[in-house]
Amino acid sequence: MIRAAIVGYGNIGRYTLEALEASEDFEIAGVVRRNASADGFPELAGYKVVSDITELGKVDVAILATPSRKVKENALKYLQMGINTVDSFDIHTEIVDLRAALDPVAKQAGAVSIISAGWDPGSDSVVRTLMESLAPKGISYTNFGPGRSMGHSVAVRAIEGVRDALSMTIPVGTGIHRRMVYVELEPGADFAKVEAAIKADPYFVHDETHVTAVDSVDALNDVGHGVNLVRKGVSGKTHNQLLEFNMKINNPALTAQVLVNVARASMKQAPGCYTMIEIPVIDLLPGDRQTLIKKLV
Amino acid sequence: MIRAAIVGYGNIGRYTLEALEASEDFEIAGVVRRNASADGFPELAGYKVVSDITELGKVDVAILATPSRKVKENALKYLQMGINTVDSFDIHTEIVDLRAALDPVAKQAGAVSIISAGWDPGSDSVVRTLMESLAPKGISYTNFGPGRSMGHSVAVRAIEGVRDALSMTIPVGTGIHRRMVYVELEPGADFAKVEAAIKADPYFVHDETHVTAVDSVDALNDVGHGVNLVRKGVSGKTHNQLLEFNMKINNPALTAQVLVNVARASMKQAPGCYTMIEIPVIDLLPGDRQTLIKKLV
Repeated sequence: MIRAAIVGYGNIGRYTLEALEASEDFEIAGVVRRNASADGFPELAGYKVVSDITELGKVDVAILATPSRKVKENALKYLQMGINTVDSFDIHTEIVDLRAALDPVAKQAGAVSIISAGWDPGSDSVVRTLMESLAPKGISYTNFGPGRSMGHSVAVRAIEGVRDALSMTIPVGTGIHRRMVYVELEPGADFAKVEAAIKADPYFVHDETHVTAVDSVDALNDVGHGVNLVRKGVSGKTHNQLLEFNMKINNPALTAQVLVNVARASMKQAPGCYTMIEIPVIDLLPGDRQTLIKKLV
Repeated sequence: MIRAAIVGYGNIGRYTLEALEASEDFEIAGVVRRNASADGFPELAGYKVVSDITELGKVDVAILATPSRKVKENALKYLQMGINTVDSFDIHTEIVDLRAALDPVAKQAGAVSIISAGWDPGSDSVVRTLMESLAPKGISYTNFGPGRSMGHSVAVRAIEGVRDALSMTIPVGTGIHRRMVYVELEPGADFAKVEAAIKADPYFVHDETHVTAVDSVDALNDVGHGVNLVRKGVSGKTHNQLLEFNMKINNPALTAQVLVNVARASMKQAPGCYTMIEIPVIDLLPGDRQTLIKKLV
């Protein structure tokens, strides 16, 4: 049994608990929260909730279900204790740097870190890499949605006169996205002004953006998301090879499942820090190697 | 530069030559053919064509472009010489046994073998494994085609009264396939008898099969193929996760590209025998690791 701790207990943390409970090869060591409280979360009854991971006894792997900005600090701390870490760090431009920072620490401690393991970056990265290998010359597009963009929603919430906001990402093909923004206004706010501010924001200025005022943003809440990855390219000297990957998924549930999968895979790698494209997909699954090969190859 | 030899020069061998010529990190050591002849293949001018691989000097990897039935014998021979081997062995039920036979020999010689590396088994196996990990409970379907089935075509050609035959695999969903069989009859052959024999053949008896007589099977020749992999399942405790992978491809061109990719990957693995789900996808691509991570993760 692999003993896992969940660090952070927001949306991803809760789905991670479910994914661990559904996995027969894991034992839940407990949950690490700053306030060490299980209040309001009946599903945590029976689990240790602590503020310091050392209170959980032996932990093989810490699943970091914290915001991306907290990943580096937490990963360094746990790796130095010899505990494997996994995360779904999603700031694409900083992945190489995070890997470079964690790798020597992991090696020094004899531990393993698998970073940026959600669905994008994460499982989509595996598909993108495989597709590029199948048709080395050509163009790939990643089309996201329909689904919420957290980053865009946060940007809208920061605008004056906005009480709550939701930005939906709508794929219109070839990696281009439309933004459908739903805003709940503060009393007395001027919709036209809010709309203009959103469309001028760096998050939106390059995309087709539509703003709608609604009574309740909460009433629109749906964690469904999707992706369409396409590549058209050349295998050897043969053109017009057409490849495509599609998902329609519950976003946090998939992210949590990937985190559990890489937590498992972390037990099978040599010490160091890895992205998902650097680990064999067979290591994501439980069970006997020969049985998996017989079933899946 | 990786020095590769192509063993066998049928359809896959010819496309492998193209894929190697299109890959800047490979040097073509030569082609191994029983008759050591380049006659009829102008594209082989300038390459060594030999009957014995030892005539090619140092060879890092032998790409086995022979029928599946010849793979084991050839792989054992080359592995014992310390030469890596790759193949697209496609008899699904015998993959585990082939791996078990080659693994100790590869380890003994300090060489690497990557087997069953085409598109199915091969790249599809990677996608199937990834999809199963994303939604561990659920059902996967592999829908092939439209495209030629070599095995089914050969079975029809063995029937009395048939001069030439082509069996097309048509996907009708949920892993069920229709067989569209085109036959060129021997003079005087009875179509009704041939049709009945085909439909009673073990290759066809369980599938919806339609037989059509044509003047020329050769006139129907097209190496296009396709696949649709679908999985609907459960991530953690969340149902209705929908995943799908589609390809429309030139079949031998894709197989050859995969063979070249795993030939490259063979240079980066520890000695032993592997299927594609056991190697990291990043190893399929040339170039610097950090650059690939920055681009693809």
